[in-house]
Amino acid sequence: MRTFEDFPVGEVMTLGPVEVTAEDIRSFAARFDPQPMHLHDDAEHNSVAGGMLASGLHTVCLHMRLLADGVLRDSASMGSPGVEEVRYLAPVRAGDRLTLRIEVVSARPSKSRPEMGLVTMRSEMINAGSVPVLAMTATLIAGRRGAGGSDGAAGR
Amino acid sequence: MRTFEDFPVGEVMTLGPVEVTAEDIRSFAARFDPQPMHLHDDAEHNSVAGGMLASGLHTVCLHMRLLADGVLRDSASMGSPGVEEVRYLAPVRAGDRLTLRIEVVSARPSKSRPEMGLVTMRSEMINAGSVPVLAMTATLIAGRRGAGGSDGAAGR
Repeated sequence: MRTFEDFPVGEVMTLGPVEVTAEDIRSFAARFDPQPMHLHDDAEHNSVAGGMLASGLHTVCLHMRLLADGVLRDSASMGSPGVEEVRYLAPVRAGDRLTLRIEVVSARPSKSRPEMGLVTMRSEMINAGSVPVLAMTATLIAGRRGAGGSDGAAGR
Repeated sequence: MRTFEDFPVGEVMTLGPVEVTAEDIRSFAARFDPQPMHLHDDAEHNSVAGGMLASGLHTVCLHMRLLADGVLRDSASMGSPGVEEVRYLAPVRAGDRLTLRIEVVSARPSKSRPEMGLVTMRSEMINAGSVPVLAMTATLIAGRRGAGGSDGAAGR
């Protein structure tokens, strides 16, 4: 199980791909972002050419799922203080296959809570044409190996 | 229909509340953030006391839904370049009722695309105990009134 020590600066992880279907795009939009451009596949509802667009937040959620499956479920993850930045770089459409590339850009032990550390990751979702569609910088709280309360979880 | 001109700096909007159920928390987590603390309601899976926690990204999605229903569906929204910051400030749990407070902090016409403008909004999701659980800063692209291509959409 990955602890704070297993996220060294410079570490690169590649996860996925995940395929995005029209049904995925519509069902996400219906629940969380019901704007016409995410629900309909015709020119009348799409100011950006090329038909229905996935909600940007849908792509953020697919990013989260790849990260959870590929890294966090087998880690001493203790949540996140937040996201530093999200950039929507290019449209995501039905049929796209997205790969997640993550790089650890900062890893620092917590001063106030010695049992944990903060890991900042810069990541991109990249489509099959090698175009980055999303860039994000986010921080993870990870338990430290052999340090106090989180050790039980980290060592399981 | 709201155009760029209808988002003056200092404008404050209050939307919601939305109630979060245990089923909502689990179904979001199962689809997008399957970490134990978002799926199980017992101490073994929750390092933070008090039982099952909503995924922070779930709260971001509920924020999006309130914004879409309350503002964007009746606006000349043309998408978003991204999110400047997300802070997860306090736990969200089953039974919480969240209100969204949004303030327009910047509104500037696009230099390269005169038919649109960029509106930056700072927002908070606040629980029934008046505790902010999420703070976000994000930017919306809005069509301008009476300006070129987006006028058709904006004027409908």
